[in-house]
Amino acid sequence: MSLDVFFEARSIAVIGASREPGKIGHEILRSLIDGGFRGNIYPVNPKYSEVLGLKCFNSVLSIPDDVELAVLAIPARIIPRVVEECGLKGVKGVVVISGGFSESGGVGVKLQSELVSIARKYGIRVIGPNCIGIFNPYTRIDTFFQSYERMLRPSKGNVAFLTQSGTYGCTVLEWLALDGIGLSKFVSYGNMCDVDEAELLSYLGDDDKTRVIAFYMESVKSGRRFIDVAARVSRFKPIIVLKAGRTEAGSRAVMSHTGNLAGRYEVVKAAFRKAGIIQVQDIEELFDTIKIFSLCPPPRGDGLAMITNGAGPCVMASDAASELGVKLSQYSNSIRERLRKSLPPYALIGNPVDLTGSATLRDYLTASEILLEDPNVNVLALFFVFQDTPLEDEVVYEVPKLRRYGKPIVALASGGPYTIKQARRLQEGGIPVFPTPERLIRAVKNFIKYYLCFK
Amino acid sequence: MSLDVFFEARSIAVIGASREPGKIGHEILRSLIDGGFRGNIYPVNPKYSEVLGLKCFNSVLSIPDDVELAVLAIPARIIPRVVEECGLKGVKGVVVISGGFSESGGVGVKLQSELVSIARKYGIRVIGPNCIGIFNPYTRIDTFFQSYERMLRPSKGNVAFLTQSGTYGCTVLEWLALDGIGLSKFVSYGNMCDVDEAELLSYLGDDDKTRVIAFYMESVKSGRRFIDVAARVSRFKPIIVLKAGRTEAGSRAVMSHTGNLAGRYEVVKAAFRKAGIIQVQDIEELFDTIKIFSLCPPPRGDGLAMITNGAGPCVMASDAASELGVKLSQYSNSIRERLRKSLPPYALIGNPVDLTGSATLRDYLTASEILLEDPNVNVLALFFVFQDTPLEDEVVYEVPKLRRYGKPIVALASGGPYTIKQARRLQEGGIPVFPTPERLIRAVKNFIKYYLCFK
Repeated sequence: MSLDVFFEARSIAVIGASREPGKIGHEILRSLIDGGFRGNIYPVNPKYSEVLGLKCFNSVLSIPDDVELAVLAIPARIIPRVVEECGLKGVKGVVVISGGFSESGGVGVKLQSELVSIARKYGIRVIGPNCIGIFNPYTRIDTFFQSYERMLRPSKGNVAFLTQSGTYGCTVLEWLALDGIGLSKFVSYGNMCDVDEAELLSYLGDDDKTRVIAFYMESVKSGRRFIDVAARVSRFKPIIVLKAGRTEAGSRAVMSHTGNLAGRYEVVKAAFRKAGIIQVQDIEELFDTIKIFSLCPPPRGDGLAMITNGAGPCVMASDAASELGVKLSQYSNSIRERLRKSLPPYALIGNPVDLTGSATLRDYLTASEILLEDPNVNVLALFFVFQDTPLEDEVVYEVPKLRRYGKPIVALASGGPYTIKQARRLQEGGIPVFPTPERLIRAVKNFIKYYLCFK
Repeated sequence: MSLDVFFEARSIAVIGASREPGKIGHEILRSLIDGGFRGNIYPVNPKYSEVLGLKCFNSVLSIPDDVELAVLAIPARIIPRVVEECGLKGVKGVVVISGGFSESGGVGVKLQSELVSIARKYGIRVIGPNCIGIFNPYTRIDTFFQSYERMLRPSKGNVAFLTQSGTYGCTVLEWLALDGIGLSKFVSYGNMCDVDEAELLSYLGDDDKTRVIAFYMESVKSGRRFIDVAARVSRFKPIIVLKAGRTEAGSRAVMSHTGNLAGRYEVVKAAFRKAGIIQVQDIEELFDTIKIFSLCPPPRGDGLAMITNGAGPCVMASDAASELGVKLSQYSNSIRERLRKSLPPYALIGNPVDLTGSATLRDYLTASEILLEDPNVNVLALFFVFQDTPLEDEVVYEVPKLRRYGKPIVALASGGPYTIKQARRLQEGGIPVFPTPERLIRAVKNFIKYYLCFK
């Protein structure tokens, strides 16, 4: 059975809806309402006749219309009974936000297996338990107990993010929103008592809206199946995975988080590599790698050229490139000659081309256009000190026009409000911006490696 | 001769002051005026009689009053002559912003040695050339050509930052300002034709306002002398160094940036370690390490305890702690018992103490107070998902009160505007906040290592 119900449902019951602000069952309902979900919303709670202006039902069974999806924010012990009611009602999918299942051990483990067997009996699909659920910016299905006041949602786009940790869900979704990178679908899948990574990956592999798939993963429940699906999907969509629980201490933490086994990291790592999965080491690298794949066209070769108005970060980038095996382009003599003739005398011609603190928009465009014509330049990295006053504001509107060359262009900038605003504009123009040279180089490395080695 | 003139001068000439917004000589003058420098400011430029409302002089020699410090933003070729005039005028220090010296090779190298010999003749001290100069938030000496509209300045505080790269200067100063971490003194020293790292370090070692000293360094001009000073200063103040030019590619980039040699990294690294210098790998680690030293009291032992309302980052923190050798505290049985009795049943008692997404302010305070009383807990790390609506806003005002226990407390949070605001409030309360578990753990590692191993 398809997972469509989780992303496309037109009627949703929120079981455990509360009138009390701050309560999980209140905030989930509010997210659906505030987020602009267009389908029918049914609060369920025997204590109330109305919540947030919507008629409240004492059970899912008393809702007069069809209910496709139910979101559960009620104590674990009553969940099996409520899922039974969902089954009788003909609900197709449930998202169990509540914790208190396998991650708690003892009775929780038993409750989780009861939940699963009841769901199986009725053919109900389950996301969770112990998660924050679903977000689809296209249909506005939004099961978050994180309010709009406290958490930004990204706009529509081509990135799917799947996570075993709700916390990293919040972080990545807000980072995407801050940087203006769009999302196709989000799933926090928690203990994954039913729907697992392999099934989600397969579904998103076939999803037209999704171009990049990223995971934060602690355990790998579907094992071999996941690897097989990944080997297929990675041939046409990049799959980026952050695997936690690399060490013994981390594995113990995984166990107490979702009650699943982390698996032996060396084994997992080797299998992932063989399946063409891009493996990253921390949440920043995950995010940076998502960004470059979401915004840039594939590179045709592995040479990186840098242009800057401040040399320091290019020194660090040269170190990082050398350490990570990213190749810096060697320009042909004719390109060097053109650069020298076309740029002001203060410019230092090399890789980087250092335009110095006196650099203007014109200098950046001149240098970029020459380098983008060099076949040895496959990825262009523009390092910006936006704080330097000689550089015109308009640079962030002009640089994106260089995308007409069809080559990947990335940028570096970091600082305060002005720089953040300028970086945001660049990204809206399709140029991913990274805050440090190491992060830029790591993203470029993952990007080049995927297109030139895996594929 | 003391370096006081660069930080305490009461009269400053800006040579090359321009009326044209965006020009370097215009923006430096504006930074002194907009920044609120209280001493006398003298624009010098033969083209104008007045700039930005101040009387403009055709040469430093025609200024009727004493001039202690001169900031030079004029072409390299006329700098030797102007420094000669500064000497005749009795100027004590010059900051040379302009490039075109040793980093350009050829005639630039010659110009730099002329500049040095003239300065020596008159006993003038020189910062630069090829730099962005000085910022002292106490006296408002500010030689930046980065305007206030484009670049934040940090407030007064205890961190000194010294950098060979102006760009990283901009980045770190704005990050400090965004996080509310205060600065004692800032120097961008560029090619360091005269004043070098050893002298700056020695000066700041004796500076009452400075408690933490951080460097971004490409070459080490003063070599042995720097190591000797560092070995002395590191006994009472942490010295944090980011050394660029670790690889051959990086070293070449160093050469073309400031015309100095990077030095063999392995040799530098060993000497730094012996001198008790805290070595970091990138600008984020530099900044994170500055923060923890700036805000936290010394630890009495090496055990780290974690409390969270979202487990994912603690899994990654456990991995990072294990990989970097940071010890996670083992609680005594009585502490575990107290935690179990005092916390709600949904809390998972371990390291981390996982309060789950239902966590409230009360849960955080209860768990923190119990752990801070455990002698096995030497550093407390509070992981926050501020987006989770059950957690009250007030948590950021209550947590800083836990500093009464005298133990270092650090925090983790990352996300959008609400989380950024909450993190800022925590930091204003003296709790450093890190965006990822890896960055938190690395900062904690540097912090513990300095106090327990170096000292």
